[in-house]
Amino acid sequence: MRIYGDSISGNCLKVKWTCDYLGRPYEWIETQVMQAQSRTPEYLATFPAGQVPGVVLDDGRPLAQSNAIILHLAEGSDLIPADAYERARMLEWMFWEQYSHEPYVAVARFQVRFLGKAVAELEPKVIERGLSALKRLDEALEGRKYLVGDRLSLADVALVAYTREAEDGGFRLADYPNVQAWIGGVEHALKIPT
Amino acid sequence: MRIYGDSISGNCLKVKWTCDYLGRPYEWIETQVMQAQSRTPEYLATFPAGQVPGVVLDDGRPLAQSNAIILHLAEGSDLIPADAYERARMLEWMFWEQYSHEPYVAVARFQVRFLGKAVAELEPKVIERGLSALKRLDEALEGRKYLVGDRLSLADVALVAYTREAEDGGFRLADYPNVQAWIGGVEHALKIPT
Repeated sequence: MRIYGDSISGNCLKVKWTCDYLGRPYEWIETQVMQAQSRTPEYLATFPAGQVPGVVLDDGRPLAQSNAIILHLAEGSDLIPADAYERARMLEWMFWEQYSHEPYVAVARFQVRFLGKAVAELEPKVIERGLSALKRLDEALEGRKYLVGDRLSLADVALVAYTREAEDGGFRLADYPNVQAWIGGVEHALKIPT
Repeated sequence: MRIYGDSISGNCLKVKWTCDYLGRPYEWIETQVMQAQSRTPEYLATFPAGQVPGVVLDDGRPLAQSNAIILHLAEGSDLIPADAYERARMLEWMFWEQYSHEPYVAVARFQVRFLGKAVAELEPKVIERGLSALKRLDEALEGRKYLVGDRLSLADVALVAYTREAEDGGFRLADYPNVQAWIGGVEHALKIPT
């Protein structure tokens, strides 16, 4: 399997971590968004949305969208709860991540760290909704080690990716102690180098 | 099952259409976003993200996020492809819908139709990315009746919801003939009143 990914992208790292956790071999093809390497005619021919990550499976078929990729790769593994309701809650978190978390927490980090914006220059909506996402995560993690049930799932993989980088966008993780403890636990479970 | 939904929201209608298609009974509890009915302390106690739709399943457990809800309700039905790769492609479209389509196509429609903005007042990014999403859909639907494989799936349910309303946001569906034909086919398959 080939993973077309940008090492600075949490969405891409989700795929790498899932493969590493599952012991699944892959070739990583560095594809830099800031160099428009995901917008070349060649890349677009395989991945029409022009986004990373994209994977080309062992049989040559392409798949895009980080959360769809990790759901496919992890099918039948312990990263997906066996219980139907827990599986649905995992999906709830994964869709919430892409709609209510990534566009704020990841975008703030990208603009500050990679585009050189000051935190004060960020769109107020980005800061406000990022804070709201972190607060919601902190409340959900009260008394819990993982987001769904009592073990690691793809909900944790998806949400830890940009949450652990939130300070780069000006958010203070010390304000969210449950989130901080959870990040440490998920990094440990996924063996993410810190 | 109780569905807390706003009848003007495509995200909520996805859940209704899926239930209707599957012949699954439900009580619809009209929950108007513009009246902040999804932000009351009572609603937030069940659905902490404060979004519609939310469902309370027969056993009393809550579930949020339109696409997670329809994936849960349709488990084991013909709305989810049996083939693993087709299932993954369906999920790819569903995550793409929430990240690259809904925030532009649905937001343009909401601001024009329900907030009374002129199309010319929309954020340029909203228009540009909405156009780009419709173009991508049109290309993907070339020679195809449905988005995944050769039959209706949740990818069609998720994407038709706001695509069929795109003209309300100033987009011209006549520019996307494959999309127009597909909308008609999906409306027919789902028996959506037009």
